[in-house]
Amino acid sequence: MTPAPRLETVLRSATQQVVIGHDTRFCLIGERINPTGRRIFQEQLRAGDLSAIERDVQAQVEGGADVLDINMGVPLTDEAELLAKAITMVQKLTDKPICIDSSVVEALEAGLAVYQGRALVNSITAEDERMEQILPLVKKYDAAIIALPNDADEIPMEAEKRIVLTRKIIEVATKEYGIAAADIVIDPLAMPIGADQDVVNVTLDTMRRIRDEFGVNMTCGASNVSFGMPSRHALGAAFLPMAMTAGLTSAIMDTRTPQIVESVKAADLLLGHDEWGGAWIAAHRARQTVTA
Amino acid sequence: MTPAPRLETVLRSATQQVVIGHDTRFCLIGERINPTGRRIFQEQLRAGDLSAIERDVQAQVEGGADVLDINMGVPLTDEAELLAKAITMVQKLTDKPICIDSSVVEALEAGLAVYQGRALVNSITAEDERMEQILPLVKKYDAAIIALPNDADEIPMEAEKRIVLTRKIIEVATKEYGIAAADIVIDPLAMPIGADQDVVNVTLDTMRRIRDEFGVNMTCGASNVSFGMPSRHALGAAFLPMAMTAGLTSAIMDTRTPQIVESVKAADLLLGHDEWGGAWIAAHRARQTVTA
Repeated sequence: MTPAPRLETVLRSATQQVVIGHDTRFCLIGERINPTGRRIFQEQLRAGDLSAIERDVQAQVEGGADVLDINMGVPLTDEAELLAKAITMVQKLTDKPICIDSSVVEALEAGLAVYQGRALVNSITAEDERMEQILPLVKKYDAAIIALPNDADEIPMEAEKRIVLTRKIIEVATKEYGIAAADIVIDPLAMPIGADQDVVNVTLDTMRRIRDEFGVNMTCGASNVSFGMPSRHALGAAFLPMAMTAGLTSAIMDTRTPQIVESVKAADLLLGHDEWGGAWIAAHRARQTVTA
Repeated sequence: MTPAPRLETVLRSATQQVVIGHDTRFCLIGERINPTGRRIFQEQLRAGDLSAIERDVQAQVEGGADVLDINMGVPLTDEAELLAKAITMVQKLTDKPICIDSSVVEALEAGLAVYQGRALVNSITAEDERMEQILPLVKKYDAAIIALPNDADEIPMEAEKRIVLTRKIIEVATKEYGIAAADIVIDPLAMPIGADQDVVNVTLDTMRRIRDEFGVNMTCGASNVSFGMPSRHALGAAFLPMAMTAGLTSAIMDTRTPQIVESVKAADLLLGHDEWGGAWIAAHRARQTVTA
């Protein structure tokens, strides 16, 4: 089989463009602006206090984030209002594009309505209802979309089933909604290695097949892989270069931990996406200046 | 094409067995006992002082080495005598198997003659003369052999040429010398990324093809990849998980740097070669005990 042409996904803020692609450096999407598992942040958001976001933006951008994910999923709040407010705030703090992350359709629409640029929407699955609700918004606001190849029944544990659902999503999005395949970013589903020792092999196999069969870009929640294990940073720092070798082109990830970001930059260099090692050498010099 | 059956290479000291294989944890071969680039060590060896080796053995075994490479290539010495002496010394200090490393045929034979167990010999190329000299020794002493797919003309920069030379080596060794394919460990040639930005992609491609076409084990000089670049440890820590994903089953490497060894152990876990994360969790607990 001849591999499919490899596509580029273009994201924009009001002033900055980021390209996700197979022949360019990896796109780091900062995962931090998310109340899941952050009790104090949840309470602040529930009280209408968004000030903690400022610190999260700064730490992630300084750490190397190219795009920032924003999730405002706090129970008993008006998520649509909160998400729109957070997006407007973050766009004043940084010119990095944003990944608008919600399971609530109204929140995604409110976010898209205020967003300046070309957003990445997080996310749809292969479920018909979810696609029917969200893909028209993606088209209307000229955004890109993250899609997970699972349906209502299950998260498939076989690569083949994930490929079937990926094909379904791409066909529906392109043929029924006129969305370009380049604007569909598949999440090949990275599960915790503690759950079953074969989950990463299945994910890597899924990545290779999605790259070769569809040429689309991919992202995943990289921190999932180490969930429940000790020394999570070291696992993240090994997983990302492995996944990049298999075709992963971006990740929603911890961009505040130097060991993890450095592993991505090393893999960029090794895969030939950092010409003459320019970025690698510059980062080394910058660290020397800081510590000197 | 159906992938070839995956082979196991068995190495032994007098009392310990190490298996290199595709379905087991990665084999770490300590690179340190080698005078190349170590001026003081060279002078000590020239004066017949082998005492520095003791420290190198201890540091590498504590760091996680499964096998120790021993190279005594010091100009203006009797390399055969020195290598035999070093092997005998190291076998008193550790029960790890040894990789006998020399470009001098007489030194390899002297080393094999004193070695207790089943050694790994480092190395042959696809050159006829080198194979004619060394493969009979490998057979006579029932050893395993590292083979580099280059010939007198060149180090081939295309994966295809490396596959052709790998096939030649395996055919000659198995058919003309009766050596089992399981005892041939191919070095797919890891070159410095600073030389050309495509070298690692070529090496990874070579690894995948050697695994799928021949099923043999592989090793490489992992530290070569970062030669001439800053932050070499971070590059090594990214390269090894990438190479393991592509089929590398062992490496001659820096086993004294925790970041690099930890990256290999993380990749073992992620590839399903550390059942229930037993080794990973035990290593974490051991570190906590040390720092507590």
